[in-house]
Amino acid sequence: MARKASLSGFPEWLPAERAVEQHVLDTLRRTFELHGFANIETRAVETRGQLLRKGEIDKEVYGLSRLAADAEDKNDPNALALHFDLTVPFARYVVENAGHLAFPFRRYQMQKVWRGERPQDGRFREFTQADIDVVGEGSLPFSYDVELALTIADALSALPIGDFRLRVNNRKLAEGFYRGLGLADPDAVLRAIDKLEKIGEDGVAKILVTEVGASEEQARAALALAAIRTLDTGFVAQVRALGVEHELLDTGLDELAQVIDAASKRAPGKVMADLSIARGLDYYTGTVYETVLVGHESLGSICSGGRYESLASKGKKNYPGVGLSIGVTRLISRILAEELASAARAVPSVVYVTLANADSWHQAQDVASALRARGIACEVASSAEKFGKQIKYADRRGIPFVWFTQEDGTHEVKDIRSGEQLSADAASWTPPAEDLHNTVN
Amino acid sequence: MARKASLSGFPEWLPAERAVEQHVLDTLRRTFELHGFANIETRAVETRGQLLRKGEIDKEVYGLSRLAADAEDKNDPNALALHFDLTVPFARYVVENAGHLAFPFRRYQMQKVWRGERPQDGRFREFTQADIDVVGEGSLPFSYDVELALTIADALSALPIGDFRLRVNNRKLAEGFYRGLGLADPDAVLRAIDKLEKIGEDGVAKILVTEVGASEEQARAALALAAIRTLDTGFVAQVRALGVEHELLDTGLDELAQVIDAASKRAPGKVMADLSIARGLDYYTGTVYETVLVGHESLGSICSGGRYESLASKGKKNYPGVGLSIGVTRLISRILAEELASAARAVPSVVYVTLANADSWHQAQDVASALRARGIACEVASSAEKFGKQIKYADRRGIPFVWFTQEDGTHEVKDIRSGEQLSADAASWTPPAEDLHNTVN
Repeated sequence: MARKASLSGFPEWLPAERAVEQHVLDTLRRTFELHGFANIETRAVETRGQLLRKGEIDKEVYGLSRLAADAEDKNDPNALALHFDLTVPFARYVVENAGHLAFPFRRYQMQKVWRGERPQDGRFREFTQADIDVVGEGSLPFSYDVELALTIADALSALPIGDFRLRVNNRKLAEGFYRGLGLADPDAVLRAIDKLEKIGEDGVAKILVTEVGASEEQARAALALAAIRTLDTGFVAQVRALGVEHELLDTGLDELAQVIDAASKRAPGKVMADLSIARGLDYYTGTVYETVLVGHESLGSICSGGRYESLASKGKKNYPGVGLSIGVTRLISRILAEELASAARAVPSVVYVTLANADSWHQAQDVASALRARGIACEVASSAEKFGKQIKYADRRGIPFVWFTQEDGTHEVKDIRSGEQLSADAASWTPPAEDLHNTVN
Repeated sequence: MARKASLSGFPEWLPAERAVEQHVLDTLRRTFELHGFANIETRAVETRGQLLRKGEIDKEVYGLSRLAADAEDKNDPNALALHFDLTVPFARYVVENAGHLAFPFRRYQMQKVWRGERPQDGRFREFTQADIDVVGEGSLPFSYDVELALTIADALSALPIGDFRLRVNNRKLAEGFYRGLGLADPDAVLRAIDKLEKIGEDGVAKILVTEVGASEEQARAALALAAIRTLDTGFVAQVRALGVEHELLDTGLDELAQVIDAASKRAPGKVMADLSIARGLDYYTGTVYETVLVGHESLGSICSGGRYESLASKGKKNYPGVGLSIGVTRLISRILAEELASAARAVPSVVYVTLANADSWHQAQDVASALRARGIACEVASSAEKFGKQIKYADRRGIPFVWFTQEDGTHEVKDIRSGEQLSADAASWTPPAEDLHNTVN
């Protein structure tokens, strides 16, 4: 990771680094499938009309044009562009394939997305996202908001990333509170609250008073709400103590309490009610999730999401959804930079089958076939150099075992690390379990 | 597969179809890793200068431009474009990272590529390729040409695609033969031979005589060479019988004989010397591979490749390589269209855990956690509807087992297919091995 990407914002990994990324993706896949999520992939491109529907030009979309074609019209809504997330394509996929899907439809999707942003630490122009969503037809029970938090807590716990905190808030809670306070523009309040970390309480209070039209008292109440953080349902009493009443606030409190109640039992310490979260509350309609790596808070959220009352719609049909998206590349780049985990070796091979002489290639292939038939990855030397040279080659690649066939047809296998050399039979020899597959620790 | 892609040339699969694709990719990965190939991924974009270096504008490259940016210059060599294959990016990656790689470096790479071609059967604008290559620093032993043929035969044999034939030719053999015949422009001869299937022997002979300057006799000899196809090394005698002599021909015959000799022993019937292959002989420098699915020859080659004396170079360093590329999307689209294989179910879940009443959600989650801890994928009902409705839901999604928790706290599990219902314990119950994972057959 000391290496610089040859194209800024487009990271590429060395084989041993890619093994770490494969481990992360495999682990996510395994966890998502254990929770019943089916995989899909969507095409990398959408029409520009589809991508810019919500005016999200700020995502810095990459347009596509065939170099062989004539000059293009940038405003053509049917022209193609690369997707900047997996939610917009998923919403389109659901509408297009609704007749073939069983709802509630739960899927995971792990693909690259592209954003023409200015690259900086933790921000890339090409990066992999791993998304899970459940989408309903017409309606979607709230219990999925709880389940998705638990699924993600399960998935992140299985990764070599240390401790994390899933922080949950609820749009209804915030909006109900602000309305109960008498503030008529909840989105303006949320935009101000979103600046808390940057400009502090006094700065936010000033904006609320001068720009949003709040009284000093209303501003202090909004800030008091944003100061509430609990790992259990204690936040409910703390909000109640602020004395604000509104029907939407009640609904929001109840919803968030369901998530935190279940999480405090099933994933204790991992999921927190955090009423300061304002990001995303402009487009999510209920639950909203963010996740920080403990000790790496500056990295920003590594997993965000929430509930959409209308993830997609077509005619009279409405598809509500709830989901989360893990920023895999952001995670990997931090894992590699801080050496939180590394691969045992850069190659899948467990065994390097040497050649005694130029005529022994077929014999060596027989050994390799016998090992592979039992799931043992190996490679055969390409030329009969001196054994010392062949061993050195295996060592340089991190292959733990070297196989020798003696002139009398017997076999020996040497553990390069310990130097131990034992007689072996390709039909039965098995490496220690921890060497069989490349491991990431 | 009756469904039409919503964007022509950009196929998207339903979950059960994606499960087939996942199975194919998993199988390839497993085989490649058993043969010691390490995985890498390269970025989706290259600079246009890099992509168009060899003048391959015919690949219909997709250029990228930020929609938010000013008008672009199509001729700017530093502007970005999507890669049209995985070979050009791999060559760049090798040069950029040479100091961090152990040569001969063997890698596999499975990624999407893009070509703005006119979509038609078996041709897509976005598709997945699975490549294996071995690249050397300075030199690369010929035994890798043999090994790669065997690795690919192994990989394709593990796929649900029926019988296939890997057809191998050699540039040196063809060029040596033509030069020995007295034809000075081997590339022109190869371009004519490449038209054999389309215009037949007489058509090719006419081109050779009128356009390439061959005599009638030379043309007939070139056609006689192209008619040779053997599953063993019998092709050597057949070529010798044509009476042409040239040093390069000798080398080519020896190289091809090594591939076919090993393959006839280790993958009998799968690999064939086919001297009619002319495609690719203009850029490959020795061995060239193509692969057809038996009974689906019209699909074209599903796996092609060959030897490059110079896959990449930098300054005085030269990197020869040999590799093959499998057209995964082309394969999948045929597997799905002809129903050569299908997934047992559209979801990973083995068990659907029902809710007896609204209060039993946590109890159901306990069951689910116990099953998942032992690798059994499951999902929990989202609301306590009538059991009949819950069973129907599981059935519609193809989940084979439904789990019930009785009021007395005991558990039962029902196989929806047979109707058999037995008492069970979440800490020990295990589904039959064939149901544990979604299978593709």
